[in-house]
Amino acid sequence: MPVSQTDIALAERLADAAGAAIRPYFRGRHGVETKDDQSPVTLADRAAEEAMRKLIVAERSMDGIIGEEFGVREGTSGRQWVLDPIDGTRAFIAGRPIFGTLIALLEDGWPVLGILDQPITGERWLGVAGRTTVFNGKPAEARRCRELKDAILGTTSPALFTDDQLHAFEHLDAAVMSTVLGGDCYNYGCVASGWMDVVVEAGLKLHDFAALVPIVEGAGGRMCDWQGDPLHAGSNGEVIAAGDPARIEEILEHLACRGH
Amino acid sequence: MPVSQTDIALAERLADAAGAAIRPYFRGRHGVETKDDQSPVTLADRAAEEAMRKLIVAERSMDGIIGEEFGVREGTSGRQWVLDPIDGTRAFIAGRPIFGTLIALLEDGWPVLGILDQPITGERWLGVAGRTTVFNGKPAEARRCRELKDAILGTTSPALFTDDQLHAFEHLDAAVMSTVLGGDCYNYGCVASGWMDVVVEAGLKLHDFAALVPIVEGAGGRMCDWQGDPLHAGSNGEVIAAGDPARIEEILEHLACRGH
Repeated sequence: MPVSQTDIALAERLADAAGAAIRPYFRGRHGVETKDDQSPVTLADRAAEEAMRKLIVAERSMDGIIGEEFGVREGTSGRQWVLDPIDGTRAFIAGRPIFGTLIALLEDGWPVLGILDQPITGERWLGVAGRTTVFNGKPAEARRCRELKDAILGTTSPALFTDDQLHAFEHLDAAVMSTVLGGDCYNYGCVASGWMDVVVEAGLKLHDFAALVPIVEGAGGRMCDWQGDPLHAGSNGEVIAAGDPARIEEILEHLACRGH
Repeated sequence: MPVSQTDIALAERLADAAGAAIRPYFRGRHGVETKDDQSPVTLADRAAEEAMRKLIVAERSMDGIIGEEFGVREGTSGRQWVLDPIDGTRAFIAGRPIFGTLIALLEDGWPVLGILDQPITGERWLGVAGRTTVFNGKPAEARRCRELKDAILGTTSPALFTDDQLHAFEHLDAAVMSTVLGGDCYNYGCVASGWMDVVVEAGLKLHDFAALVPIVEGAGGRMCDWQGDPLHAGSNGEVIAAGDPARIEEILEHLACRGH
C-alpha cells in the first residue's frame, strides 16, 4: 500500500504531538539532583512516545508500533510505526537544540516514510519513498561530492564503535576533508539538505535509522549498511548515509579495512 | 578602568553587526564546488570581523584589536578587543546552528567582558567581571555538581589533543557520567546556563577562550588552565570550565595523569 496523504498528515501530527510533549522539559534543571528515572529527558521521552502511540492506536488500530520507550505493539496490517521520541538524549541533556524526534512508517519491514523533527528550532525533514524530501516545506537536495577528499563527514562519537569498526572509520576519516563529531540524527538531515556529505555510524537500532532512509534518499542521497545493502528492520545497525550516491563504493572500500 | 555600560553597549553592537554579516552565508551551497578562500565560511568570517573592527576603530581608536582573521592592531589604552567571528567553523560548514561569535574585552591582558552570540538561534550570553552573566536578557546560573560521577562533560574533538593530553582527558572521561562531543564555544554557554558541568579542551587560542571566562565565572562557575591558573592573554591554550568550582581540584587531578 503506497504512502497516502493521510499517512503523511498523521505522521506530521505525531511529530507535532511529540514536540509539544518535549519542549517543556528541554533545559529544565536536572541531572545532578534528580533520580535517573525521573530525569527530564526520561519524562520527555515517555510523554512524547505516549502522545504518539495514543494517536496511532486511535486512528490506525491495525498498524503495529515499535517504540524506543514502550516497545512493540503487534499489528495486522503489515505496517509498523517506528518511534524514537528523543534521538540524541545526551545532546538533549546538555542543552543542545540538535536532538531530534524520529518517526518512521515501515511496510513489510522497509521504511517508506520518515520524519526528523527538531522541536526547539522548529526544523522538520519529511521523506516519503518515491517523493522529494521536504525541509520546512521546501524541497531538500543533497549535494554532489566529486571527490571524497572534499567531503564533510559526521559521526556522533567514535566511542560508539567497536575496535574493528573504529579502525575502519579512521581509514575513512583520513580520506575526507573534515570530520564533525556529535550531532546524532541531525547529521542525516544535514546530508539531506546538502550541508554535509557523509555520515557513518554503527550500533544503531531500527528506531535510530528507519526514519532517516526516506529522508536522505528522497533528497537524492543514499543510505545503506557497511556492506552496501539497503537498510530494513533486520539490518545490523551499521549505517552509511551519503549525499552523493557516486561516493558509496569508495566509502565501502574504506570501511572494509577492519583489520589492524 | 572598570567595564562601563557604554562598553557593554558597544560589545552588543559588535555582536549584532557580526550576526548580520554571518547570517546570509549560513547553509549556503559551497564546499565541494568552491575554492577555499572564497568559501562562505571564510567570507562570513571576514565580513563579520571587518564589521566589528570598523565599529571599534570608529569609536575606540585607542583600544587594541586582536582578530582571528585580520590579526593585531596595536592600541594605547591598555584595552584590547579580542574577536573570533565564527568559533566552530566546522559546525558552521556542516549546517549546525551551534557555532558562535566570540567577543572579549581585555584589560591589561585579563578578560573582563565576554559575549558568546549564536546568530541563527538568536542566543546570546554576556559576561562582565563582577556581574551576573546574562543569557538572552535573563540571569544565567551554572549548576552545582556534588560528584564528578554525575557530571556531563563536553569537548569538541579528542583529535584536538596531543597524545599526553588525550591520555589525561580519557582519565577524566572515565570519571564522569556522560561525555558529549562537538559543540565548540557553545558548550561553555551550556556550562554557564547550568545544562552541562565541565568542558575541557586544549590547543585553544586567546580568541577561542577569552570571551568565555567572564561568561562562565559570572554565572558562578570557574575557568582555569590545566594547572588551575586563571586564563589570560599568555595562557597556553589548555582550558577547563567547571560549573561548580568545588569540582576543579578533582578535575585537575585527573588531568594531571598524562603519562602512559
